[in-house]
Parts: sequence; structure tokens; C-alpha cells
Amino acid sequence: MDLNNRFLPECVTDLIEELAKLPTVGKKSAQRLAFHLLRQDDEKIDKLAGAILGIKDGVHFCEECFNLTTERVCKICDNPSRNHKTVCVVEDVLDLIALESTMEFNGVYHVLHGALSPLDNVGPDDLKLHELFNRLESKDEADKVEELILANNTNTEGEATALYIHEHLKGNGLNITRIASGMPVGGDLDYADSLTLKRALKGRGEF
Amino acid sequence: MDLNNRFLPECVTDLIEELAKLPTVGKKSAQRLAFHLLRQDDEKIDKLAGAILGIKDGVHFCEECFNLTTERVCKICDNPSRNHKTVCVVEDVLDLIALESTMEFNGVYHVLHGALSPLDNVGPDDLKLHELFNRLESKDEADKVEELILANNTNTEGEATALYIHEHLKGNGLNITRIASGMPVGGDLDYADSLTLKRALKGRGEF
Repeated sequence: MDLNNRFLPECVTDLIEELAKLPTVGKKSAQRLAFHLLRQDDEKIDKLAGAILGIKDGVHFCEECFNLTTERVCKICDNPSRNHKTVCVVEDVLDLIALESTMEFNGVYHVLHGALSPLDNVGPDDLKLHELFNRLESKDEADKVEELILANNTNTEGEATALYIHEHLKGNGLNITRIASGMPVGGDLDYADSLTLKRALKGRGEF
Repeated sequence: MDLNNRFLPECVTDLIEELAKLPTVGKKSAQRLAFHLLRQDDEKIDKLAGAILGIKDGVHFCEECFNLTTERVCKICDNPSRNHKTVCVVEDVLDLIALESTMEFNGVYHVLHGALSPLDNVGPDDLKLHELFNRLESKDEADKVEELILANNTNTEGEATALYIHEHLKGNGLNITRIASGMPVGGDLDYADSLTLKRALKGRGEF
């Protein structure tokens, strides 16, 4: 990027450098984004910079489910119209967003913030697993969680994490379910991998 | 995006919304970028926001070539070691960056800021064409431009713009050249379109 210093103003090369640090943004994309911003009026620039600075203070994890919040608990845990007896376990907040966008789930969540991955040195203590187990135990009878939906990703790490949770909790009367595995809607059978097809067959239901 | 307001803090949804306004950044990418920024420390957040705000003031077009600058003329026009008698015409500053990165060109530039495109209502008056023609005329004999390299894009709009400039200037003694068209290096002949192959044949040179 030093190259550009010879023919562009420093503030422009600074911006390109900062944008290029973002994930999935390479040098070329950073240039395009920077030149897009250069064409914007001051108000729009201020709004973007303000939104970035706005997350600096006050965003932390919900004490209940580890979603993001600026309060003690998040908007979902704080919502009395949601079913607090069904807890859906997800790997991160992006998964929670994806599930919420289906408008199919009215329970609450538990965000693990990762998946077990020995190769990356991620063990049970690095995830919000103890918090999950505590949460399931400490409830009094009226608030007792009845169903735990394991919506971990369906890759190796996600499966391992789901298995770990299942092993730890089985036999204590909790209904533990796993999201269905199979053909994605609109998928082509001859492009699907054999494991997906195996799961799709195994999990077949009445037509 | 209203959907997210139900379960995420407002400052996070604000940031996602602002990021999603950037070109090539969709809703999903905006979410990923926002969660990346949420994991950064304050110092990095400040640097990014600062770089964005940094372009607000003082960046304008070079009076000579319409590259970006914070001074009267840009770093290239201001450089006495560059050959001011060879002017390379480009569509935008990104093209200038691409050419500079080759380290092959020691002349100066003229940035048109677009290409002729009647379908998009872009005519000669919308580009820095008059400025180019004035620039070529007004020089006294010592500084006279000798070669004009047309490095407009090789798409229809770029070709039309190059043709327009050539028509306007031919016969006034200026050496007008066009960048070579042909096979890109590393290209596969059977994947190239016929027009590219035609140009590659037509422009063939001694081996």
C-alpha cells in the first residue's frame, strides 16, 4: 500500500488501509469502498463513522443467554411473550439472527460463542457451556426448561459440541432435540454429498 | 432490517444498516463486518472511524489532471521527475492506481471521471473532456504534450470515449495512441471471446 502514497493524499491511503483490515475486504475492494465514500456527502460519512463509534460503549453479553445487549438481559430474554421453557442452543449471534428471521421460533436462546475444536485449542471452558448447564439446573420448578434444541452447525465441530451437550445432560429428564439434517430446499440430489443424502434418507418422514 | 430491532441492541442494527449501504456489501456481509467490529478493541474502532472522517475535508480534484489531492495539484503533477509531455487518459482514479502499480509509466495522467454513455445520459459535458482539450492547447511550446495515451476501458463506453477524443484531436500534430488489446497474460485461447482474439491477431508483433 506504500506504493499509493506516491500519488494519493495520505487520508485516502489511510482509509484504504483501514478498510482492507476488515474480513473479506481485500486491497481492491478497499479501494472501491474508499472511492465510494469519497463520493458521499459529509452527512453520510458522519452517519457511518457515528455508527461505528456507537458500538464502542455499552454493548455486552446478555446475562441469561449471551446474546448482545446494552441492558442486563437482551430483548429476547426480557420478552415475557416468548416461551422461556424452550431453549435453542446456537454457536453465535449470527446464527441467532438467521433463526429469528424464520419467524418460526418463539422460545429463547443460548449463545455458546463458538464450537468445540481441539485442533484450534477450543475446549469446553472456552464456550458458554458451564453457563448453559447452570442455567438449566438453577431454575425453580415453574420456570424449568422443558426442551433444549441443539442448533449447532452441522459441521464436525458443531456435531461434536452438540454431542458433548447431549452426553452431559442425558438422563436428567430434559427433552433434547437436534435440528434436522437433510437436503436443503431447492437442492439438487446429484450435487449433494453422500453424508447429507444419508441423513436425508435416515430422517425421512411421512409424505 | 427492522426485524433485527426486536432482538439486537439498536447501535448494532444501526451499524449493520450503515455497512449494508456500502457497495458490494449485502445484508449478510454487513452482519459479519459488524460482528467483526464488535470483537475489536476501542483503539481499532477509533482508527477506522477516524480514517473515514479523515476524508471529509480537503480532498478534491487536482487542477491539472483531476486525480485526488489535498493541494492545488496532485503528487504526480507536482513531481518534476515525471515526463509531463506524455499524458495518459484514464476513466477514474482506480484505473490510475492500477497503471501506477505497474511502475511502467513515468508520464502524467488525465482522469476523465467516467466514459461516454448515452444510455445513462452521460455526454461529453459530464466528463473532464473540455479540461483535457484546454490542457492540450494552452501549453506553451516548451511544455507541449507530445503523446496522448488513451487508456480508457476496452468496453463499448471506453471505446466510444477514446474514439471521441481521437476524432476531436486528430490532425493537430499530437501523437495519439491506444493501449493494446489482446489476450490477457496467462489466458486460455479457447476461453477468450472472438473479439479479443480478433484484436490479438490484428495487433500481432514480431516474436
